[in-house]
Amino acid sequence: MHIREFQKMMRRLYFHRDSERGSAGTYDWLVDEVKELGDALNARDKAELQKEFADVIAWLASLANVTGVDLERAAVAKYDHKCPKCGRSPCECNF
Amino acid sequence: MHIREFQKMMRRLYFHRDSERGSAGTYDWLVDEVKELGDALNARDKAELQKEFADVIAWLASLANVTGVDLERAAVAKYDHKCPKCGRSPCECNF
Repeated sequence: MHIREFQKMMRRLYFHRDSERGSAGTYDWLVDEVKELGDALNARDKAELQKEFADVIAWLASLANVTGVDLERAAVAKYDHKCPKCGRSPCECNF
Repeated sequence: MHIREFQKMMRRLYFHRDSERGSAGTYDWLVDEVKELGDALNARDKAELQKEFADVIAWLASLANVTGVDLERAAVAKYDHKCPKCGRSPCECNF
């Protein structure tokens, strides 16, 4: 599924709630889901880990919907088959 | 771009670094990028906001690579054109 298609699906499912909640409230949900992803990393339960990855990208897409950002366009604009810092693939940055 | 293709691109660009850093270190980077996204929401600079969304999905894809999760499969498995809690589209959950 394209990133854009996933974002549009999230819009169909949740925009009525996301738009009421607004960007700050939606961001708070995203932060909570990132914490849950961290907990799932430690628990090492693969099925649970997959669900938490799903929740993080879902809330990221919801936040993009609320803020009017095209997540796919943003992602490909910055990471266009090369590192945005060194311009190489693979990245050759010294960090 | 498909979610899976984006994840593969991140693998080509960064897996040599991501695998050395490991899941805990990569998760810490993701958390930092989520904080920067929060700052960009407050700053209301649209170009900067788009870059921060790109960084969050990029580090999420890197973390998925390090932990062996197929981000697209995980996302579509949980959010398959309906809310995973109420089974409806749009979501009709009471929360």
